Amino acid sequence: MGLVNRRDVFIEWGDCDPAGIVYYPRYFVHFDNATVALFAAAGLPKHEMVKTYDIVGIPMVDTRAKFTIPSRWGETITIESRIAAWRGSSFDVEHKVYKGDALAIEAWETRVWVGRHPDDPDKIKGRPVPDAVKARFA
Amino acid sequence: MGLVNRRDVFIEWGDCDPAGIVYYPRYFVHFDNATVALFAAAGLPKHEMVKTYDIVGIPMVDTRAKFTIPSRWGETITIESRIAAWRGSSFDVEHKVYKGDALAIEAWETRVWVGRHPDDPDKIKGRPVPDAVKARFA
Amino acid sequence: MGLVNRRDVFIEWGDCDPAGIVYYPRYFVHFDNATVALFAAAGLPKHEMVKTYDIVGIPMVDTRAKFTIPSRWGETITIESRIAAWRGSSFDVEHKVYKGDALAIEAWETRVWVGRHPDDPDKIKGRPVPDAVKARFA
Amino acid sequence: MGLVNRRDVFIEWGDCDPAGIVYYPRYFVHFDNATVALFAAAGLPKHEMVKTYDIVGIPMVDTRAKFTIPSRWGETITIESRIAAWRGSSFDVEHKVYKGDALAIEAWETRVWVGRHPDDPDKIKGRPVPDAVKARFA
Repeated sequence: MGLVNRRDVFIEWGDCDPAGIVYYPRYFVHFDNATVALFAAAGLPKHEMVKTYDIVGIPMVDTRAKFTIPSRWGETITIESRIAAWRGSSFDVEHKVYKGDALAIEAWETRVWVGRHPDDPDKIKGRPVPDAVKARFA
Repeated sequence: MGLVNRRDVFIEWGDCDPAGIVYYPRYFVHFDNATVALFAAAGLPKHEMVKTYDIVGIPMVDTRAKFTIPSRWGETITIESRIAAWRGSSFDVEHKVYKGDALAIEAWETRVWVGRHPDDPDKIKGRPVPDAVKARFA
Repeated sequence: MGLVNRRDVFIEWGDCDPAGIVYYPRYFVHFDNATVALFAAAGLPKHEMVKTYDIVGIPMVDTRAKFTIPSRWGETITIESRIAAWRGSSFDVEHKVYKGDALAIEAWETRVWVGRHPDDPDKIKGRPVPDAVKARFA
Repeated sequence: MGLVNRRDVFIEWGDCDPAGIVYYPRYFVHFDNATVALFAAAGLPKHEMVKTYDIVGIPMVDTRAKFTIPSRWGETITIESRIAAWRGSSFDVEHKVYKGDALAIEAWETRVWVGRHPDDPDKIKGRPVPDAVKARFA
């Protein structure tokens, strides 16, 4: 089923809101970092990957998260990430967040592999994900 | 179809990433603020509402966003928000983000109306959304 | 004493930490936005200014803030901003935060007017602030 | 000279702004986390410390940072933190940020040891820092 990356994330005071639990937009920051960590685990650190493949980034086009168990500051969560599907110029990432053995959050992302638009450098345009990139996650 | 709230949001330098477009977790911050603004427009400012109804907050249990058109710093977007459905202790919010006339993002939220857990003040527990609250959005 | 810009900022739920008061790094976000607003009030919207003067931005080199009165979510603060001094390629900004008539926070910034480094486009380099820019704040 | 804590921080894509360097308010987030890590290194994890000593937190009253060398996403910085001074109910923290051997940022914090106000639980009030806490950093 391909490469799975796991990382522990300590929940900081500043991740949390007045209810004392993680302010949910902060989870999307952790998921974005987890996707970068997944690529790094595949030998593709993002800051090198954008140069190697002359892309601008891998922006999000669709994301969803289901939050089952809240987390509080001082706790540590584990984020487990993998590529769920490759398509032409887009791909899906899945994140599962665990607190101990319990599944606390599930999240899905669809991202696009984009470069500068050939006709307008201020715009971005999807490009085919290179096979060499996909092969790293096999 | 009930109350709809519209608010303009100026995209700040600090909302954007090295690609020059909004760092997507920031949209969830804007959506959270937009839901608070929707309740305020209904006569229910959140900081008063939590006291009036003795709740901890309205945490997110499920959210999704589809990003169609990116935005850059210095631009202004309009977020249009409404309650899409009420259930027992949860409810759905919809946000549409417009750049001029173009629909740039659609987002959906399911939130829960929660108070302190009666048996454990460190935990939270869903409660029925009061009819007086629902009536404000009619 | 030159141009002074005032703006009201509503303290959002997501600006605050588990103590229920503003998480202090968020104030620096509000100050950065306030400096952008000060330049806009001077007829220099940042996204146009960087193009007009071919700069990368106005990064911070030194900043300090003294916090006297905390603020809670649901409150509104007023940020009053002005240029305190111009030097060759740097300048000072002052922010005063008011809650009603009370001075809640004082903050100071030293920023540099920077462009791409002529020898290395990945680096930045200070440049003289144009007189036309300074004149806007007189 | 007392306990010094060092931690490496990977600069994430989302830490950076359209100039490709760290958005400076993010450094204050890293400094806040570094202070929490310093206390944890002293055997005082913040989430336990607030319960043990019945405090609300250690809010900031004065902070300054001088930024000498910018950092870009994909780089790793080292934050070196220590207590610079203890006073009655307040204390100073110093952070030095290194990129390799080069000193990139210096930051100073004055924080207060606060509990709930005895007359108004919605307010906070400074309290003497316990000697047992100070002794941990000797």
